[in-house]
Amino acid sequence: MSSLSATLQLAFDLISRPSVTPKDEGCQQVMTDRLQNIGFTIEQMPFADVQNFWASHGNSEPVFCFAGHTDVVPSGTIDKWHKDPFTPYIDDQGMLYGRGAADMKGSLAAMIVATERFIKDYPNHKGTITYLITSDEEGIAEHGTRAVVETLAKRNDKIDWCIVGEPSSVNQLGDMVKNGRRGSLNGVLTVRGKQGHVAYPHKAKNPIFLASPAITELANEHWDHGNEFFPPTSFQISNIHAGTGANNVIPGELVAEFNFRFSTESTVEGLKQRVEQILNKHQLDWHIDWSLSGLPFLTEPGQLLAAIAESIHSVTGITTEPSTSGGTSDGRFIATLGCQVVELGPVNDTIHQINEHIKAEDLNQLTEIYYQTLVRLLAE
Amino acid sequence: MSSLSATLQLAFDLISRPSVTPKDEGCQQVMTDRLQNIGFTIEQMPFADVQNFWASHGNSEPVFCFAGHTDVVPSGTIDKWHKDPFTPYIDDQGMLYGRGAADMKGSLAAMIVATERFIKDYPNHKGTITYLITSDEEGIAEHGTRAVVETLAKRNDKIDWCIVGEPSSVNQLGDMVKNGRRGSLNGVLTVRGKQGHVAYPHKAKNPIFLASPAITELANEHWDHGNEFFPPTSFQISNIHAGTGANNVIPGELVAEFNFRFSTESTVEGLKQRVEQILNKHQLDWHIDWSLSGLPFLTEPGQLLAAIAESIHSVTGITTEPSTSGGTSDGRFIATLGCQVVELGPVNDTIHQINEHIKAEDLNQLTEIYYQTLVRLLAE
Repeated sequence: MSSLSATLQLAFDLISRPSVTPKDEGCQQVMTDRLQNIGFTIEQMPFADVQNFWASHGNSEPVFCFAGHTDVVPSGTIDKWHKDPFTPYIDDQGMLYGRGAADMKGSLAAMIVATERFIKDYPNHKGTITYLITSDEEGIAEHGTRAVVETLAKRNDKIDWCIVGEPSSVNQLGDMVKNGRRGSLNGVLTVRGKQGHVAYPHKAKNPIFLASPAITELANEHWDHGNEFFPPTSFQISNIHAGTGANNVIPGELVAEFNFRFSTESTVEGLKQRVEQILNKHQLDWHIDWSLSGLPFLTEPGQLLAAIAESIHSVTGITTEPSTSGGTSDGRFIATLGCQVVELGPVNDTIHQINEHIKAEDLNQLTEIYYQTLVRLLAE
Repeated sequence: MSSLSATLQLAFDLISRPSVTPKDEGCQQVMTDRLQNIGFTIEQMPFADVQNFWASHGNSEPVFCFAGHTDVVPSGTIDKWHKDPFTPYIDDQGMLYGRGAADMKGSLAAMIVATERFIKDYPNHKGTITYLITSDEEGIAEHGTRAVVETLAKRNDKIDWCIVGEPSSVNQLGDMVKNGRRGSLNGVLTVRGKQGHVAYPHKAKNPIFLASPAITELANEHWDHGNEFFPPTSFQISNIHAGTGANNVIPGELVAEFNFRFSTESTVEGLKQRVEQILNKHQLDWHIDWSLSGLPFLTEPGQLLAAIAESIHSVTGITTEPSTSGGTSDGRFIATLGCQVVELGPVNDTIHQINEHIKAEDLNQLTEIYYQTLVRLLAE
């Protein structure tokens, strides 16, 4: 262990703690101890059974924030891992293995070490450095970042720039950062027919047959064309079910779960109306339970993106690509504070999988990128 | 009990035996004892765990057959019955309650009492009277009538006319008899797509979207126009399922169970080909597991239908309507012997339901109809 960099040592410590969502298992204590040592003020912000903290160093604007989560997704079948998922190790190819290596304990370690170095080098830095850390990102995500952000908003705590440590890179460290995310809107559609016996079809109305033309139209609809920053809005049905199990009964209703990933060119109300128009056009007896998972957010080119892009280029030689693709993240909650939010972290191709791993050296480079970004934004 | 007719006394005895499919619970013993008493030769024909018998009286042609089953469907929640489903009673409206009252222990009692009276009145009747009774009609129906008929066919046992005691009446006893049934063809369709994350739809193929236009086309297809005896062939999907349960995953495949009820205007091979053509036209990656549940059969107007119609009219004043509507029955197996098959029994509106019941008096009338039919066909 003694030959490991400070970042890798800390990453090992965090990965060793089996903090399967929403558990924290002492990870935040390790982080707050380190931050307190360099002068941070720590504020615990537990909500329900979820542990969160907010920490700050400095009292002036602009306010920079490192955001992330200590929880990880479950390991899956442990037998399928080369070694225990919560006993990190570096193999002879230089790969760091362990649940959370990429998502996102490696990033947390890099943030802490970068911050330590920055405060040592620039004790009188401009503005304020903050941390917003939760243990509920991989689960329901209700009592984590969302709840902390609501508290910050109520007391008018401000953030100008935020880096979320989500694993944003695709093939090489830094090749992609996320400067926004599409919105996510869920619906559970029920189409009612009339149950009956297959031998007496004239006495029944098959909801599978009634719904099919509408589903085809929904599947073929062009919701918008996207824009410079977003791909076009997409509609998918994830689950569909109808039937009693018996093969001689025409079912009484069909239930379909669907999801929109939507760009800033569409609105929640607009999408709802258009779905409902299509269902009505097909004269269906329908009901939808809507639930908004997240509004889209976008960080347009500006100081934060520029500082990050320059730091990536300086450390890796790569010109990073800002993108709004992919799933949702806690960035959607932080963005509601009106700040610039960018996600920057390791290569994400093994996240949530068996044998999650990243290049160990990438965490040292990520530390350097985070450090240089702090320098570019806050050095006095 | 002593004030009850012979038919109702026997119906009470049979209903009291909880012969939930494929159990017989002594019903057949009661029937064969009565038939032996009037000179029938009894042949037990058990297959696997299913009890069946074949009985005959006479040695010449034509051969008449009473067919039926002693098993009943389960009672469902017993608490929802007014009284115990296996303790028959007649209420103050004259309704006989009990599981099997309509389907079809009442018919079995009527057959036995009609036969007893006929043999007493016409000891030297023409031809042969037979019984084909199973305890596996309501279940898998593999080791019941189907197996007995196969045995009869192998040894060239002949049947000319067969009455199956299925409850064929709709509003009043005798208003409808079934002179045929549609065929039933089942299929389990799998449409393959490509699983993926809803946030990356370009990497996936949603089998729900791929299948919907084909399902619409199958639903709208006119398979045939039916004919004088059959309604048009109908296609229904009874069950459809796709999805992992997670609302962010595009499923890898869709599975739909479907059923054809088909007339004599369509063939099994023809229907299969047309379904496959539609799926191929939509360029689906599909697979179907087919299973034929029964070929259509038809008894055209002739001696048997005429004798039955005249007997119904004589007893009830009703002009009966021959029909091929409704579900399948063991008639489909018996028809393969090349005989005329007609289903005639009580009103079917409470069969398979809680508080199954029929008019008690209908069983006395049904006994008279069966008796007169025997007279019209076999009296010397």
